[in-house]
Amino acid sequence: MTQLDSIFSHVDQNSADYVRRLGEAVAIKSVSGDAHHRPEVVKMANYIISWMDKLGVSHTSHDPGFQELDGSQVKLPPIILGTYGTDPAKKTVLVYGHYDVQPALKSDGWTSDPFTLVEDEQGRLFGRGSTDDKAPILSWLWVIEAHQKLGVDLPVNIKMCFEGMEESGSEGLDELIVQEAKGYFKGTDYVCISDNYWLGKTRPCLTYGLRGIAYYKLTIAGPAKDLHSGVFGGTVHEPMTDLFAIMSKLVAPDGKILVPGIYDQVRPLTDKERGTYNGIDFALPDYEGAVGGKVVIQDNEHEVLMSRWRYPSLSLHGIEGAFYSAGAKTVIPAKVTGKFSIRLVPDMDPAEVHRLVSTFIASEHAKLNSKTVCTVEPLHGARAWLADPEGPSYAAASKAVQRVFGVKPDLTREGGSIPVTLTFQENLGVSVLLLPMGAADDGAHSINEKIDKKNYIEGIKLLATYLHEVASA
Amino acid sequence: MTQLDSIFSHVDQNSADYVRRLGEAVAIKSVSGDAHHRPEVVKMANYIISWMDKLGVSHTSHDPGFQELDGSQVKLPPIILGTYGTDPAKKTVLVYGHYDVQPALKSDGWTSDPFTLVEDEQGRLFGRGSTDDKAPILSWLWVIEAHQKLGVDLPVNIKMCFEGMEESGSEGLDELIVQEAKGYFKGTDYVCISDNYWLGKTRPCLTYGLRGIAYYKLTIAGPAKDLHSGVFGGTVHEPMTDLFAIMSKLVAPDGKILVPGIYDQVRPLTDKERGTYNGIDFALPDYEGAVGGKVVIQDNEHEVLMSRWRYPSLSLHGIEGAFYSAGAKTVIPAKVTGKFSIRLVPDMDPAEVHRLVSTFIASEHAKLNSKTVCTVEPLHGARAWLADPEGPSYAAASKAVQRVFGVKPDLTREGGSIPVTLTFQENLGVSVLLLPMGAADDGAHSINEKIDKKNYIEGIKLLATYLHEVASA
Repeated sequence: MTQLDSIFSHVDQNSADYVRRLGEAVAIKSVSGDAHHRPEVVKMANYIISWMDKLGVSHTSHDPGFQELDGSQVKLPPIILGTYGTDPAKKTVLVYGHYDVQPALKSDGWTSDPFTLVEDEQGRLFGRGSTDDKAPILSWLWVIEAHQKLGVDLPVNIKMCFEGMEESGSEGLDELIVQEAKGYFKGTDYVCISDNYWLGKTRPCLTYGLRGIAYYKLTIAGPAKDLHSGVFGGTVHEPMTDLFAIMSKLVAPDGKILVPGIYDQVRPLTDKERGTYNGIDFALPDYEGAVGGKVVIQDNEHEVLMSRWRYPSLSLHGIEGAFYSAGAKTVIPAKVTGKFSIRLVPDMDPAEVHRLVSTFIASEHAKLNSKTVCTVEPLHGARAWLADPEGPSYAAASKAVQRVFGVKPDLTREGGSIPVTLTFQENLGVSVLLLPMGAADDGAHSINEKIDKKNYIEGIKLLATYLHEVASA
Repeated sequence: MTQLDSIFSHVDQNSADYVRRLGEAVAIKSVSGDAHHRPEVVKMANYIISWMDKLGVSHTSHDPGFQELDGSQVKLPPIILGTYGTDPAKKTVLVYGHYDVQPALKSDGWTSDPFTLVEDEQGRLFGRGSTDDKAPILSWLWVIEAHQKLGVDLPVNIKMCFEGMEESGSEGLDELIVQEAKGYFKGTDYVCISDNYWLGKTRPCLTYGLRGIAYYKLTIAGPAKDLHSGVFGGTVHEPMTDLFAIMSKLVAPDGKILVPGIYDQVRPLTDKERGTYNGIDFALPDYEGAVGGKVVIQDNEHEVLMSRWRYPSLSLHGIEGAFYSAGAKTVIPAKVTGKFSIRLVPDMDPAEVHRLVSTFIASEHAKLNSKTVCTVEPLHGARAWLADPEGPSYAAASKAVQRVFGVKPDLTREGGSIPVTLTFQENLGVSVLLLPMGAADDGAHSINEKIDKKNYIEGIKLLATYLHEVASA
């Protein structure tokens, strides 16, 4: 593979330029969650399009329409669909990424301006969007550029789907994928997404599973209006009392979900799967560091990972309608809505989970002998996603990691959801690979977000190598 | 009592003028909770002072200093101390009231401008402060005026304590009462407060008891920062889980407090006390109407009243630090503070209640085997207040009600707290009487606050008659 050697050498020689260009992208405040920044999101789309034009990537911009944001109708940024190469003899890899970012203010606690890329003496590149997801999406373009400059044939066709609303609900994306499954997306052999992170700081990983989610609103209604606890306390069934009674029955302090039947749907742990946890780059003290306190339930690494990746969890998020400020208000809230969610794993079905949850809650409410009215509403549900880590795309990615980093990647799963993963897999019927570039400590949604220069530069090589490997898979 | 007959006749003849003057007072927007309205609160103080001057009531204005409000230091309105008569041969009655009002905006849902007194065809006088507490405080002045105009000797000395911060924490009042107990307040024989309401709409009452309160913050701390439930769910002890577990153990859905030992301090119900509930003007359907829903726990009037007046209750008010907005946020809150309070009755002692509550919570937290940290903090505590309804002041008030309204008053208690009641009783060592003018449906803190013209005019007669009766008690 002397072709790749020359690519690697080119990437190393141009590393300063890649950093400079990432700085250009970071300087565009493409915050999708704030209507005032919407023009910057569009500016970022145009930045990408201008690069596509330079590199001969053909593209169309899909307009998802409008959204209501901050009380007004705001035009959504385009979903950019790029095409580079249409050779029927080659495999076609669809890459997905997003060009919008999380909000960031210097006053949130950033040590430097969030929208000015700053490199420190350890080679860390600080800036909002540096790792999430500007370095990865740009890297796909730099891979194309490197091949062009060196006159090396790119051995695959590339389709690119870059959206500008990932941090704010991916408005319009699912609909587009469904609609274009047999249009633009037709002919896709593999999907590769670089939008998550290594498990630790040093060893690359391939991610083949994500938990799903079932989010619930549990509403207890009592009096017609909020009451004064002095005047009415002791004489009315209080929605808060009933809400606490029921929500306290959902999950035990050790994390065990108490809704009967929930664990019946969980795919049993096999010896083979258990074996995959051996040697994974993960240490409990690092995890406690990320949590920021000694409140980890499990006492060994494998159990922590299994609890994050392959077992369901239930979290109580909050209450809408109750008193939430500082101080001491003597209110009996009239109607309160508890929010909780269950992280789903294979083979849990959101519909069956909803049946179990609503049946359980109804029976617990009945036990209270209360005159309040109890309703359960599922807000959204998404199945867990699981890919086959032994398929050709993963094998190609594994070889690429070994080629670039000299180590076998960890095979990881994640506890959160990336809904588009499942949408691609189910609608295109192909294998989806998560191939992260950033490290565990990049702080994607936090202050002082960064990507290590090494991760960025070696990441470009990794993506290039993956394309070469998957071409011959 | 031909003197009182002439007073009654004078009051009836001047009723239009009393309504006009109440309109002048209502027009002054003396909202104490908003710094922008503070000059209007002072204006209202001056309105009262100008009447005191006209009537020869000597007065001093106590300056309680400054408070922090809306982020700046705001001067507190004066506490007006008036003195009318210093005849050592007469009894001295201290009357308390407040000249500030709750906030009100037409846009809150008022059917007319809140600061323009409007009389409807049923003789209801709508306006902010009409019943709470401008009609009552002005009525004391009209009683003095009537005596002067008719040349009738007022058979008691009157001291007046009118504050302008009652709706916003009575800043500085307790300190003044303690400080002046042996100064200005010396020689007080009876305290009479007209700042609460009849139990129903037709029959007057004397109120001789109020519940106290013990307000608690229960804080559970876990991770150093809020965590993502996808990434961390299932691996950390979640403060919300533990908070719900503990708070669900405090009170049963039927209102029974579950903290061991709480009921040991509750004064037992005697047959005599039980008898006082007979014939009270109170109907369950009216109460359900006030609650606005069929969620009343008890199925008969006596039990409802006892649960409000003479038994403790525990309400869960809310959570600080958790998710409280609309929508679906997948957060594991790092530190949450549950707010709850217990309404106290005789003979509950706030210190002993705190000991029981904190011991119980500590033991419940220990049972959870959780690594979270649990702390309980009492925010404020006030004992219940109970007067002797057979004492001379109550006997005088009872005769006054019978004289003016032709019925025996109900003897009532209330579920809420009026802290100044206890402060007067404990520091002056005299009997405190609550002698309401307004009716149950006046909506003191709500939109469309009103006082019935009949309640206002007959109320002036009631206060006058009470002073005559108590003079000879």
